[in-house]
Amino acid sequence: MKDQNKPEGKGQSRRNFIKQSGTVGAGAMLMGSMPFLGNAFNTNTSNDTNTIIDMSKNIKTKGYAAKDESGKLSPWEFERRPVGDDDILIDIKFASICHSDIHQEKGHWGKQQYPQVPGHEIVGVVTAVGKNVTKFKVGDRAGVGCMVDSCMECESCTHGEEHFCDRGQTLFTYGNKTDAEPTGITQGGYSDKLVVRDHFAVHIPDHITFEEAAPLLCAGITTYSPLMRAQFKVGDKVGVAGIGGLGHLAVKIAVSKGAEVYAFTTTPDKVEDIKSWGVKEVIVVDDEFKNMQAYNKTLDYMISTIPYQFNVTPYVMCLKPGGTFTFVGMPEGSEITINNLMLAFARVNFNSSLIGGIPETQEVVHYCVDNGIKPSIEIIDANQINNAWDKVVNKEARYRYVIDASTF
Amino acid sequence: MKDQNKPEGKGQSRRNFIKQSGTVGAGAMLMGSMPFLGNAFNTNTSNDTNTIIDMSKNIKTKGYAAKDESGKLSPWEFERRPVGDDDILIDIKFASICHSDIHQEKGHWGKQQYPQVPGHEIVGVVTAVGKNVTKFKVGDRAGVGCMVDSCMECESCTHGEEHFCDRGQTLFTYGNKTDAEPTGITQGGYSDKLVVRDHFAVHIPDHITFEEAAPLLCAGITTYSPLMRAQFKVGDKVGVAGIGGLGHLAVKIAVSKGAEVYAFTTTPDKVEDIKSWGVKEVIVVDDEFKNMQAYNKTLDYMISTIPYQFNVTPYVMCLKPGGTFTFVGMPEGSEITINNLMLAFARVNFNSSLIGGIPETQEVVHYCVDNGIKPSIEIIDANQINNAWDKVVNKEARYRYVIDASTF
Repeated sequence: MKDQNKPEGKGQSRRNFIKQSGTVGAGAMLMGSMPFLGNAFNTNTSNDTNTIIDMSKNIKTKGYAAKDESGKLSPWEFERRPVGDDDILIDIKFASICHSDIHQEKGHWGKQQYPQVPGHEIVGVVTAVGKNVTKFKVGDRAGVGCMVDSCMECESCTHGEEHFCDRGQTLFTYGNKTDAEPTGITQGGYSDKLVVRDHFAVHIPDHITFEEAAPLLCAGITTYSPLMRAQFKVGDKVGVAGIGGLGHLAVKIAVSKGAEVYAFTTTPDKVEDIKSWGVKEVIVVDDEFKNMQAYNKTLDYMISTIPYQFNVTPYVMCLKPGGTFTFVGMPEGSEITINNLMLAFARVNFNSSLIGGIPETQEVVHYCVDNGIKPSIEIIDANQINNAWDKVVNKEARYRYVIDASTF
Repeated sequence: MKDQNKPEGKGQSRRNFIKQSGTVGAGAMLMGSMPFLGNAFNTNTSNDTNTIIDMSKNIKTKGYAAKDESGKLSPWEFERRPVGDDDILIDIKFASICHSDIHQEKGHWGKQQYPQVPGHEIVGVVTAVGKNVTKFKVGDRAGVGCMVDSCMECESCTHGEEHFCDRGQTLFTYGNKTDAEPTGITQGGYSDKLVVRDHFAVHIPDHITFEEAAPLLCAGITTYSPLMRAQFKVGDKVGVAGIGGLGHLAVKIAVSKGAEVYAFTTTPDKVEDIKSWGVKEVIVVDDEFKNMQAYNKTLDYMISTIPYQFNVTPYVMCLKPGGTFTFVGMPEGSEITINNLMLAFARVNFNSSLIGGIPETQEVVHYCVDNGIKPSIEIIDANQINNAWDKVVNKEARYRYVIDASTF
């Protein structure tokens, strides 16, 4: 893995002290040439912290971690790597709960190293920046999604597709092995602090609350990216299957972009909510998919956010021949079985999509903020996480649980 | 089902006699107004038969049928429906063996009614035509592929996509239930005669042998149709996975259309054959797919003709992001399991394709004939069918077995 963020690595050989303060801005300008201060002082901070951070030392962090495959979370104190030259330190304000957190911590996608802190919808305030950082200054509002590093040099990384790093060095936000972190793996956002390479954080504009911004970092980009790639036209019929954390944002984004949206849910008591978001129709899917037959060959595009193996065929059959079905939910084992014959009859293109790159993540944040798209959220304390996870699995989330990081 | 071809149905209430002869053409012209003669006499026949066909009677046929799920074929005499007003009678010259025949007769795709005569690559000479038939005349060379009827009225049927009949009335060449046939199901081409609605037969030009034309009716159209839909450009890199009956034609067609073809086979002793067809490279796929890694993200399009469940991922990874992977093999149970995560990383569109419509079937016959594309075949007698089936399963076919129908 990359060396630059190793505790003992290059750029960490001397102790760098960064003082952060809401009042230090002007003085910092005068001291901008002092290399050990980095550019942390070249800022106009809006936070009220006033602490000294030892840039050579690990960052003590409090969070909630899974300790084993039970996926039961409990408080855990751990250390993050020191703030490197290209890093920022974020004082996390909110982190929201994605179904992926549950899948991964329970080992549904493969064996995990524990303790592991999940969470990849993270927002907060920048409280320190490394000396090379120009993208952020102390006090900035910042968000982090599903990845925290990549090679940054390959064709994909230099073209806004860091999640497809050609060298396979995309580092996902939690559970990915890395020598840079004291725990040996990346640790996610269910915590109070995060050290992240500046490039992998995006700006959170002032005109959205932290708690409403958090879900955009995964649920937002994961639905926005394939929806944009689908290049549907205003008035096109777009289906959204699975109206949870991702699905409800897919609906709102597609409606905002001018699609005639058909929402497919298995939960009758979501119907009124979904209608209020401007959809054309809500279809409550029955066990035998009978009421879906009326939609045979009607849709131009469909996105499924259902995070389980399911019978894809009735959904695929709703698409017009030549239409595209995108699967963004990642089921257990990451496998989906398709009836090949029905796919042939439907003449539908099937694909899967995985988050989006950093530029597009920034884009979706701006788009949602500028167009009044807000996730529907419920704020919880850290001690409610396990209960919230159960509710997510039981389809009781309405529609995203957001954890108040001050309660870690 | 449709009534017109029922033995006792409309248009069959009186006995229509059709005399066929190579010498009767001129006389027939004079008698063209005699309704009971249909237009069978308005022909210039080239066959040497000279028999009387009672148009109201079932057609006695000899063939080879599976009697149960063992899929063991044995001689069987049966009757086909009478030649209806819209039908032609074909004296079959050759029928070739498709892996689908084996799958279906062995019940791999679902329970079958037996005895069942397989075969959907059928060529022969028209020996009688119904009174409404204008497409063929007695003596014409004709071919029949995977379907023999449809509603002929819906949007799909009237736009050359009879295999996607909107009313679900596409009647496949064997094993499909139909009241029109005395045996209650359609019976295929491993036989000496076929009654088929004229629209579902295509013309076989003079400048190809019957035996070389037969495989075009399924293997040809099934690969040609998705290849054309892929709209690859001259010089594009096209992969073909599985170099059997379908795959070897996919290679020849793609090469002919200007693609740079990469052929993936698991059978080393096919390499020299494949090279002789003008491919850019032949990749002998090893069990661990190690030698495929060099082709990661290199292909613009890929077609797989592998008729089994297999690990699709290494193949999908050979495509450039945004590329399309088409699956035309139909595995047991018609299901294919995809690693959804890898599909997301590959950013590949996955689809399946099912034969092609009648106009396109005619098109592929003309294209192949006009461009010198001939299947590589081996002619066998009827009593060699079971052995040939074993060889197909064991990847020993080089590359299509064609049955001499005179041996039924």
